[in-house]
Amino acid sequence: MKIIINPATENWPDLLKRPEIQKENLQALMAEVFSAVEASGDEALRNYSIQFDGVAPDEFEVRQDEFVNAEASLSRALKDAILLASRNIEKFHRAQQEQIRVVETSPGVRCWRASKAIEKVGLYIPGGTAPLFSTVLMLGIPAKIAGCSEIVLCTPPDKSGKIHPAILFAAHTVGIRRVMAIGGIQAIAALSLGSKSIPRVDKLFGPGNQYVTAAKQFAQQWGVAVDLPAGPSELLIIADQTANPAFVASDLLSQAEHGPDSQVVLLTNDPDFAQSVMLELSAQLEQIPRKEIAQQALQQSKCIVFPNLETCFRWSNLYAPEHLIVAVENYSGYTDQIINAGSVFLGNYSCESAGDYASGTNHTLPTNGFARNYSGVSLDSFLKKITFQELSAEGLLTIGPAIEAMAEAEQLEAHKNAVSIRIQYLQSNG
Amino acid sequence: MKIIINPATENWPDLLKRPEIQKENLQALMAEVFSAVEASGDEALRNYSIQFDGVAPDEFEVRQDEFVNAEASLSRALKDAILLASRNIEKFHRAQQEQIRVVETSPGVRCWRASKAIEKVGLYIPGGTAPLFSTVLMLGIPAKIAGCSEIVLCTPPDKSGKIHPAILFAAHTVGIRRVMAIGGIQAIAALSLGSKSIPRVDKLFGPGNQYVTAAKQFAQQWGVAVDLPAGPSELLIIADQTANPAFVASDLLSQAEHGPDSQVVLLTNDPDFAQSVMLELSAQLEQIPRKEIAQQALQQSKCIVFPNLETCFRWSNLYAPEHLIVAVENYSGYTDQIINAGSVFLGNYSCESAGDYASGTNHTLPTNGFARNYSGVSLDSFLKKITFQELSAEGLLTIGPAIEAMAEAEQLEAHKNAVSIRIQYLQSNG
Repeated sequence: MKIIINPATENWPDLLKRPEIQKENLQALMAEVFSAVEASGDEALRNYSIQFDGVAPDEFEVRQDEFVNAEASLSRALKDAILLASRNIEKFHRAQQEQIRVVETSPGVRCWRASKAIEKVGLYIPGGTAPLFSTVLMLGIPAKIAGCSEIVLCTPPDKSGKIHPAILFAAHTVGIRRVMAIGGIQAIAALSLGSKSIPRVDKLFGPGNQYVTAAKQFAQQWGVAVDLPAGPSELLIIADQTANPAFVASDLLSQAEHGPDSQVVLLTNDPDFAQSVMLELSAQLEQIPRKEIAQQALQQSKCIVFPNLETCFRWSNLYAPEHLIVAVENYSGYTDQIINAGSVFLGNYSCESAGDYASGTNHTLPTNGFARNYSGVSLDSFLKKITFQELSAEGLLTIGPAIEAMAEAEQLEAHKNAVSIRIQYLQSNG
Repeated sequence: MKIIINPATENWPDLLKRPEIQKENLQALMAEVFSAVEASGDEALRNYSIQFDGVAPDEFEVRQDEFVNAEASLSRALKDAILLASRNIEKFHRAQQEQIRVVETSPGVRCWRASKAIEKVGLYIPGGTAPLFSTVLMLGIPAKIAGCSEIVLCTPPDKSGKIHPAILFAAHTVGIRRVMAIGGIQAIAALSLGSKSIPRVDKLFGPGNQYVTAAKQFAQQWGVAVDLPAGPSELLIIADQTANPAFVASDLLSQAEHGPDSQVVLLTNDPDFAQSVMLELSAQLEQIPRKEIAQQALQQSKCIVFPNLETCFRWSNLYAPEHLIVAVENYSGYTDQIINAGSVFLGNYSCESAGDYASGTNHTLPTNGFARNYSGVSLDSFLKKITFQELSAEGLLTIGPAIEAMAEAEQLEAHKNAVSIRIQYLQSNG
């Protein structure tokens, strides 16, 4: 990890750059898979599952007895942990429910918003070596609170066609009944187009590799919405001399172990503190199983020493990190300075992994600078807010003339007439 | 307008289809304009403005004295109308502000969300024959309430290089200082990439023709967010025999006059009522200036008579209209049945044009079936919600073991270690 001391402002744009993501052009492949799924449904899904993943179960949908077996195969400690995390995630997301507030904007003109669940949602959970059951909770719990009527979870099976029991247990805990053993582009195509086995959904959620990401982007052409644009995971830490160098190093490593493309940045106002963190980092790096991955991520990471904390926050806002740890004295005095970030962790005991798993906040967050213009996943992501308005005769008479004047000036006479015809009626019948 | 009586369920999919939108492939044109604007900034903007719109003002940015002149040139009645509408829009959108609610998910684990404005937003207002100053209010007012630090409005000038005074007055009323006389693809490219005259923004808002729509879609490759996918405007009315056929006909026409591709649907449980509306429609059609446009729109529109209102609502949810007028007796008893719609108008005096201009609700709404999975523009559209968490030592000790168990099961040992190192510290220093 490179230490940069007090860089001149003209060098900031270079420092703020994230490494270019190598983007393969996958459009032709997407078009091929989506067309095949549209034309031949389950058969195409099965063929691509064999071609891409080497396995296609007889039935994509997991049977109910498999959920029971999954529960039996997990340790009590892990199940309790999942239940504790579920409760916290549920508490935090349930508090996001909104009461209907009717606003009388003019006498007789009542307006409000009502939240309605997006009816059908598809949750994608990546496969690979580690079973990301925590993401099942992060997506499934708000979907259930919202009241989505159909929740379909797709995740690739292992080589024997099985799904990791922790994913099944998490799905069962949340109340997701439909889990499909299918992954990759074909899973996204199935959720976007529908097939005999897999229903078409209105919105797609969840992380994935570059193929899944490209497929989610491609799916939007079919009218499906997606949660967030995707990118490699990131952590930025702002710390001063009151922080614990060992804690900070452990947080940097917890991000770096995600993948060689993980972004890790440390900002501080204290060069000695920076040095202490580097020493801790070298020592701790030796002890983690994913050392090589973390080492690659750290190679393109940086520690920048600025003259003061205000500058650290200014730089952080320009970077717009997915995760931001603020380990400084009196951190509450700085929260107003945070403008662009996905999720913020305050103080010495709020490690990123708390939010990744169990504090209750969502871990599906905007990466790659999208914290400038996107929020992370929340209850809102599973809802539409429909506006309602109810005008009484009085209400129409109050605002009607303004509508007539504006419609006329916009040269939309029929818009005006919809008001005039009602006013005339009221005047001749009132 | 064709009347269809009680169609069989198997014919619903056909009836629900919107006409195919002819999509030209504009990718090559987009790539050309964006590349040129990236390479040569204002010079490219000027060249394309002359090429596409036949005019390029010396300075894109409107001078402050032009706002003053605009105000002087408008009638008092129109200015008062704009001010009334502004007050209502402001009241409704200000009521959408959220207080911070801290949730203690476990003892010592405090989580909350804070709303922060998206810093830079670009508002696009189409040109053409009618000056859409109402859209200036609908986008500008929530942007100001959110607290966006930079609001840039782009709108194409007329052939003499001028912007309609009602647009300038609306912008001034809202408090938008930066108005640029530029439209089309080049305006979107400028807002997405930045130039000497026009700043780069984080999110783009506003309607536009197929070129603007394609440019907004293209802009997302540069990390810019957009408000909504675009499509032709739509109105669906559910009415029973208690509705006024003349009112209903006037509402259908107010939607039909938007453009030949406007979608208009009437659902009712009463065939006689349907006939009365058709008669009114023919009579009123003769009286509106945009008769030919409305006539074209009505040709592909339909009136469907269902056996009961419940079926009307079920069909409407499948169609997912942008605007939904509910002119039935006891309409309050039906609002829970509305699942997919952009904005809803209740009763005989809530005409769509009320919401288009002055009731206070936003008129930037999801079209083309996107009411299934998108909300209309609201204060939220100009905000990001950042999650915060603050764990005390107690909080970490409470949920730490769960985090450790879950991280270990996901094979992310460094995630686990960020907790373990803190627990060890607390145990040896506590």
